[in-house]
Amino acid sequence: MEFDTVIHDGTIVTAGEIYRGDVGITDGRIAAVAERLPGGARRIDAGGRLVMPGGIEAHAHIAQESSSGVMSADDYRTGSISAAFGGNSSFVPFAAQHRGQSIDDVIATYDARAASSVIDYSYHLIVSDPTEDVLTDQLPRAFARGITSFKVFMTYDLMNLGDGGMLDILTVAREHGAVTMVHAENNDMVKWMNRRMADKGLTAPRYHAVSRPELAEEEAINRAIQLAKLADAPLFIVHVSTAGGAAIVQREKLAGAKLYAETCPQYLALTRADLDRPGMEGAKYICSPPLRDVQTQEALWHHVATGTFESVSSDHAPYRFDETGKFLNGTDVPYPKIANGMPGIAARLPYLFSEGVVGGRITMEQFVALSSTNAARTFGIEKKGRIAPGMDADIAIWNPETRRTVTAADQHDNMDYTPFEGMELQGVPETVMTRGTPVVEDGALKVEPGNGRFVARAPADLRGRPGAAVKEFDPAHNFGSDLR
Amino acid sequence: MEFDTVIHDGTIVTAGEIYRGDVGITDGRIAAVAERLPGGARRIDAGGRLVMPGGIEAHAHIAQESSSGVMSADDYRTGSISAAFGGNSSFVPFAAQHRGQSIDDVIATYDARAASSVIDYSYHLIVSDPTEDVLTDQLPRAFARGITSFKVFMTYDLMNLGDGGMLDILTVAREHGAVTMVHAENNDMVKWMNRRMADKGLTAPRYHAVSRPELAEEEAINRAIQLAKLADAPLFIVHVSTAGGAAIVQREKLAGAKLYAETCPQYLALTRADLDRPGMEGAKYICSPPLRDVQTQEALWHHVATGTFESVSSDHAPYRFDETGKFLNGTDVPYPKIANGMPGIAARLPYLFSEGVVGGRITMEQFVALSSTNAARTFGIEKKGRIAPGMDADIAIWNPETRRTVTAADQHDNMDYTPFEGMELQGVPETVMTRGTPVVEDGALKVEPGNGRFVARAPADLRGRPGAAVKEFDPAHNFGSDLR
Amino acid sequence: MEFDTVIHDGTIVTAGEIYRGDVGITDGRIAAVAERLPGGARRIDAGGRLVMPGGIEAHAHIAQESSSGVMSADDYRTGSISAAFGGNSSFVPFAAQHRGQSIDDVIATYDARAASSVIDYSYHLIVSDPTEDVLTDQLPRAFARGITSFKVFMTYDLMNLGDGGMLDILTVAREHGAVTMVHAENNDMVKWMNRRMADKGLTAPRYHAVSRPELAEEEAINRAIQLAKLADAPLFIVHVSTAGGAAIVQREKLAGAKLYAETCPQYLALTRADLDRPGMEGAKYICSPPLRDVQTQEALWHHVATGTFESVSSDHAPYRFDETGKFLNGTDVPYPKIANGMPGIAARLPYLFSEGVVGGRITMEQFVALSSTNAARTFGIEKKGRIAPGMDADIAIWNPETRRTVTAADQHDNMDYTPFEGMELQGVPETVMTRGTPVVEDGALKVEPGNGRFVARAPADLRGRPGAAVKEFDPAHNFGSDLR
Amino acid sequence: MEFDTVIHDGTIVTAGEIYRGDVGITDGRIAAVAERLPGGARRIDAGGRLVMPGGIEAHAHIAQESSSGVMSADDYRTGSISAAFGGNSSFVPFAAQHRGQSIDDVIATYDARAASSVIDYSYHLIVSDPTEDVLTDQLPRAFARGITSFKVFMTYDLMNLGDGGMLDILTVAREHGAVTMVHAENNDMVKWMNRRMADKGLTAPRYHAVSRPELAEEEAINRAIQLAKLADAPLFIVHVSTAGGAAIVQREKLAGAKLYAETCPQYLALTRADLDRPGMEGAKYICSPPLRDVQTQEALWHHVATGTFESVSSDHAPYRFDETGKFLNGTDVPYPKIANGMPGIAARLPYLFSEGVVGGRITMEQFVALSSTNAARTFGIEKKGRIAPGMDADIAIWNPETRRTVTAADQHDNMDYTPFEGMELQGVPETVMTRGTPVVEDGALKVEPGNGRFVARAPADLRGRPGAAVKEFDPAHNFGSDLR
Repeated sequence: MEFDTVIHDGTIVTAGEIYRGDVGITDGRIAAVAERLPGGARRIDAGGRLVMPGGIEAHAHIAQESSSGVMSADDYRTGSISAAFGGNSSFVPFAAQHRGQSIDDVIATYDARAASSVIDYSYHLIVSDPTEDVLTDQLPRAFARGITSFKVFMTYDLMNLGDGGMLDILTVAREHGAVTMVHAENNDMVKWMNRRMADKGLTAPRYHAVSRPELAEEEAINRAIQLAKLADAPLFIVHVSTAGGAAIVQREKLAGAKLYAETCPQYLALTRADLDRPGMEGAKYICSPPLRDVQTQEALWHHVATGTFESVSSDHAPYRFDETGKFLNGTDVPYPKIANGMPGIAARLPYLFSEGVVGGRITMEQFVALSSTNAARTFGIEKKGRIAPGMDADIAIWNPETRRTVTAADQHDNMDYTPFEGMELQGVPETVMTRGTPVVEDGALKVEPGNGRFVARAPADLRGRPGAAVKEFDPAHNFGSDLR
Repeated sequence: MEFDTVIHDGTIVTAGEIYRGDVGITDGRIAAVAERLPGGARRIDAGGRLVMPGGIEAHAHIAQESSSGVMSADDYRTGSISAAFGGNSSFVPFAAQHRGQSIDDVIATYDARAASSVIDYSYHLIVSDPTEDVLTDQLPRAFARGITSFKVFMTYDLMNLGDGGMLDILTVAREHGAVTMVHAENNDMVKWMNRRMADKGLTAPRYHAVSRPELAEEEAINRAIQLAKLADAPLFIVHVSTAGGAAIVQREKLAGAKLYAETCPQYLALTRADLDRPGMEGAKYICSPPLRDVQTQEALWHHVATGTFESVSSDHAPYRFDETGKFLNGTDVPYPKIANGMPGIAARLPYLFSEGVVGGRITMEQFVALSSTNAARTFGIEKKGRIAPGMDADIAIWNPETRRTVTAADQHDNMDYTPFEGMELQGVPETVMTRGTPVVEDGALKVEPGNGRFVARAPADLRGRPGAAVKEFDPAHNFGSDLR
Repeated sequence: MEFDTVIHDGTIVTAGEIYRGDVGITDGRIAAVAERLPGGARRIDAGGRLVMPGGIEAHAHIAQESSSGVMSADDYRTGSISAAFGGNSSFVPFAAQHRGQSIDDVIATYDARAASSVIDYSYHLIVSDPTEDVLTDQLPRAFARGITSFKVFMTYDLMNLGDGGMLDILTVAREHGAVTMVHAENNDMVKWMNRRMADKGLTAPRYHAVSRPELAEEEAINRAIQLAKLADAPLFIVHVSTAGGAAIVQREKLAGAKLYAETCPQYLALTRADLDRPGMEGAKYICSPPLRDVQTQEALWHHVATGTFESVSSDHAPYRFDETGKFLNGTDVPYPKIANGMPGIAARLPYLFSEGVVGGRITMEQFVALSSTNAARTFGIEKKGRIAPGMDADIAIWNPETRRTVTAADQHDNMDYTPFEGMELQGVPETVMTRGTPVVEDGALKVEPGNGRFVARAPADLRGRPGAAVKEFDPAHNFGSDLR
Repeated sequence: MEFDTVIHDGTIVTAGEIYRGDVGITDGRIAAVAERLPGGARRIDAGGRLVMPGGIEAHAHIAQESSSGVMSADDYRTGSISAAFGGNSSFVPFAAQHRGQSIDDVIATYDARAASSVIDYSYHLIVSDPTEDVLTDQLPRAFARGITSFKVFMTYDLMNLGDGGMLDILTVAREHGAVTMVHAENNDMVKWMNRRMADKGLTAPRYHAVSRPELAEEEAINRAIQLAKLADAPLFIVHVSTAGGAAIVQREKLAGAKLYAETCPQYLALTRADLDRPGMEGAKYICSPPLRDVQTQEALWHHVATGTFESVSSDHAPYRFDETGKFLNGTDVPYPKIANGMPGIAARLPYLFSEGVVGGRITMEQFVALSSTNAARTFGIEKKGRIAPGMDADIAIWNPETRRTVTAADQHDNMDYTPFEGMELQGVPETVMTRGTPVVEDGALKVEPGNGRFVARAPADLRGRPGAAVKEFDPAHNFGSDLR
């Protein structure tokens, strides 16, 4: 048995196990794991450090223009480099349809943009214009190409599909096995609040949080789940920010819904008090759904630990603190005109490891599941997210003892701030490899742009979900036994 | 002390008490209740029979054209007569705005129609077109006239206001103290189902029930409540037909929402199996939300008994089983073209008494609350629904022992069928009076059309509802203590 | 119509209604209520003040020796006077069996003690020794005499009956229609905690609260309810002090259990921080279950407002702050040797009115229900607790505007402190009458000891409780339909 | 790299992953897993069949005398052989203390009995007599020897420890990291029912189910959990048989309790209708807690699928259908005199695989977790239950396609019946090995009695359990922040 690379003497951590041993890599794949492996054209001595599946970032806005016209500061080159420095071996940003645009055109556009990525990638397809042709022809074609997740919005006038549009997408998704992701906030509630705030002249950044109340997310999460139950299609709730929303997800999962969800580090680490920083500093913390309070942080951590969330994702939405980003509409504007979003692709895993594992809230196995394995399963990435024979050698080697203070410079992105600035975190990804090739090592980038490849994905893995076996739409589905 | 009328030796039942005694009536009002009252220009010997507040029917479609153009079979004359024979002393049908119509015009129209009523009446105002002028000028004017409840729809393309429209109505309602009633079914869910049923050629009446799944009601009930919580306005959920919907109402009431709800006898007595009767017979049982199953009946009775519902109302929607009603669009049409609704204004209280009180599911006091007192409280009818000094002498005298079989003829309405046909019920309202005047007595109508008067109503009584005291809209309402 | 007394122009408040009017009293009974009543040998002008059913205090330790041998400071004379000054027209203290004592002897003892009462009274019978003869002979005899409620303890070594003993009592109670009251705290949990506290030398009064954790009450409440469900007997949980316990009661009531519960003003008004007052002051606040925290206060108020509790009772347990009471075992003793309990019979209703009604948490009707009417219904006091023809004229006239500061002297009891000292409360009972006779008027006692009479009570009123109709014990009760 | 054995071309299934590959075994340990491994002194071609961790049976009564004096039909030889034929590589029967017996004596007794086992084994220690010496000296010594789980009973007069006894055990368990298992049924409830059944002459086997109502289990499960929460010690609820009990476990786990639970195949496969078989046949199905109904089966399967239960265990309690077992007290005795229990150690995994995996209720990964991996984690078996380098080569190779009908003969135990007789199941364990040695292969036993070894276990693995980190008993644990 000959290996291209042997990682020797690692503390190997998967979503299910921890054991000491070696990993043998051949042709970019994990060929063997063993108590001890001889040889290796290249031999890396892990010295007991953590050898884990590289992170999979499943929620990032890269080279994407928002519906209000702001281009993200990171393209696939800087975005993927930042991701790799943050412990990720692959990522799945969004490919966003603008109204009137064909899905084929969307994919072609993002294929061109993604060519500079240093790590492997796929896209979630944002659908904002579900015409008949999109539904019957273009989405199935995108699906056949391996783009097996669609995202829809319940908020923003230019993106919101309405319940009917969501049912249409869910119907297509169900037919093909795609998972539908949803940004769940009630659009009319937010608009009603915005009108009230405007009437009262409450326009400072802090009022952004007031304008998007917890009720708006909780209502929309519930509605999205009921729509998906009607269509009998799997659903993924992105960036859950409320205790109430998480409780609904938990309840419905336990009742058997085919349901996935994530939260993000910003909802665990920050609060709306950050929106109240002096001057326009609060604008750095404007994102949607907005930051909440400390009780919510506790509740969300509890849900992270008890399985409500499959993943903790970054929702990396990098808009610079200048006129190209946050202040595209001017520097002294009311909150609705400030770009929504904050960066975090490099900070996600160090934060989650430090506050989660070191902080005693989750185990190392849970860290692997939340950072990588579950995303692979949910989004049909069959060859990543695990350390097992036959898998891509997408591996991160972490030193769990090193402590580091977060700085904007260390994020390796194209941003001018990080909302996690100044946090002292323990645990550092030292080596990150994609398909056996080190991307980051010894604190330096080791590959050229273009090292990453597109990953065709399989349908969502619904095994183990009660009721997941039901395949045919049954018109009598809701018609009780008394009449069947 | 002289009385116009003394009801002697009754078993007086109110929402709170049962006691033996006399009721003295002067000038149409209850002047005294006592162990024994002398005199009375007229003296009625109750002989121990039940002396209760006359029923208040708070959900009836009278002289109303549906959005699809079918005129109800009952006008205010026949509708009020049927109500009176069913034990009711007053009722509150709907006054429905058509799109483009002014509220003043609506009220004028219904004032003319109601002039023939034999019992007192008010209207709930159905709002289908909340223009700026309606919101700022016309609704406040209707409110000032004593019409203190508005009804909105979350379903039907021509009636559905959307979440934004509901928030607008709730905002006005909150400002004035009106209660907003809502027909809660998710319109897009129903339309999605209808398309699927049509595609599969499933058009028989029984598929009406399939086309409006429980999920559609449950989702909409939840959404309506969250909208009302945001607007901090009271809400009344009409005709709850699902166990899931009732559970949401119960949970939110206990958590402090200013929330009211009702169910109807048809959801307690019938099931969707009735929709599967031979030929087009099932059309008689088409109503929305649709009939459900026996498990739901049990659950709804439990909620009737434990306080989830303020009232059991009839939702009397009388469309004859002919081309003027059910089959306005033809006799052999797919279910979506059959008129929705069934009569029940005369059957409501005999059914509720027999199955509820005689059947051991509720007490007599609860019967009074569910049939009369709670409606008076919820809808601001200050002088009816109680037996106490100063109240209108709206009284029904029941013989609790008499058994009777329901027939269409006995309903005294203008219909050609009753869905309760053939049920044997125990308990009969023998005398029904409005303001001291017997309307029905000895099985005969005793007054002329026009005996009834319009009742100006007060705002909803929110006392005893946690949080009901909050009066001012607070933009920081959802902004936690960390930032206030 | 001639009356002995007419209360003229009152704002009459019952558990269900508020109206302006007169009350006519003849032979100690309410003969009539009317808009206006002429005459009256005596005529009291209420001038619009509140005319309500006099309070019924259903939880008080009067002339009772505790199991650890401390005699309550109040006998029936001082206890009933204090109750009357606090707005009560009758009360139901405990008659406590000591182990080895016959029930007949218990009743004879308390009959002698109660002869000095100024208001009407009955007893709840505390059973601590359920021998075969007690169960089969003595308890039925007590029940026949009108003592229709038994109380048992799940804590205290000398009182705790064990689950088997409780099932025995519940079985007898069910057979006769008695309601079983229970002090629910897990005895072994408390003993386990006491051992640990003693081991660590934690003996100050504040550790009393630690030693009786919330878990101990929550567990015991749940267990008591399950035992009662097995025996199919009604149950009353006394002095609920925890949010968790109240939530269990709420859940089980809604699910159909024949269940009643109360909380007490001390759990709404005070916290365990009071146990940490300097020196031995904390001993004044030692009671069981112990005082909790402010979050619990909020939760309990919510349950008071939403119907979880039938009553707010005082649990008046008057042990003086001296060697006859709190310190019978010495002044510098560890907390387990300090007498448990605090006075409150005079403060209960003024506190509940002020913080509840004036504070906007409950309505006046709820105040009447919580202070009087519900106790009458629960404990079978058929002629009190309501203002209606035929009822005893047990009436309190309150001035809702008067403000007063609580002092020990104003309690009119035999105590040397009140835990409510210094609270400023709004609302004062000015006139309190029992069977038409003023007991307190113009701030003075108006009757002699012995004015009160024993009230024979009926069985618990279970009407309106789902499942309450089931009468026969059915051995197949828990045997599903598959085998019946 | 040389291996003693290579299992080639298996479909390797772990609790987290499925992949195709080879397993290399050296010195009884798994040395490597790889896409392909060369060599092997012995080479087994799995041909794509399932290669899974061998089952760990964590609930079995072997060579154990019940408290009523019946000796189990299986000793360690027949019991372990039956287990191995059923796909198990190791098991953990009970070592039961009789009152008065020292723990050291118990262990010595079972060490002698277990010497004939063909598979590895450990014991759970049943404690029925927690004297001071047992608590402070003997249990810690047993723990030090690697017996890290204690079992207690809440039922049976001779076993039931009372809440105080349980708190004592939990305290010791917490100190050492042991997990406490509990048979949760309320003893007094069962005795109360037994008395009633006896009074009415209801003695047939079917009344066994009536005599142990669901309430008795639900109450005891709740109480056990609250006791464990007070002591801050981990708890394992054995053989959960009720939907209500499972719901409590689910709720408390989600709330953060350190809680584990199992159910058994008999509660998923059989109902109390089986107790009603003709003659005394029903006696075969007498076990405690008793069999329930079909609704319960569905609910329990749902909890198996959604993580409420860590394991599905057999509760193998083999009492023959003759005078040595079921009828030790005679053949025509009332149900309380019939021995409780049924065999199932060989049927557990084939049933779970067939109804669970083949039936579409659980995934193969869940099967591995429920049958082996979770038991290893819960009970500190550090080297078994996983397929990973360094683990014991305890492996079962299953053919998932083979169908077989259950017969008593095929169970390879010492019993004369199986309750699963006649079920047709799909999926057969063909090869079962312990530490690399085939125990069962080609349908035959391959080792001699004595092949098994005692396994010293580590403390329960609490990682990933919220709150699991709390180590020191804190007397102020239940004392809110207001006083700390």
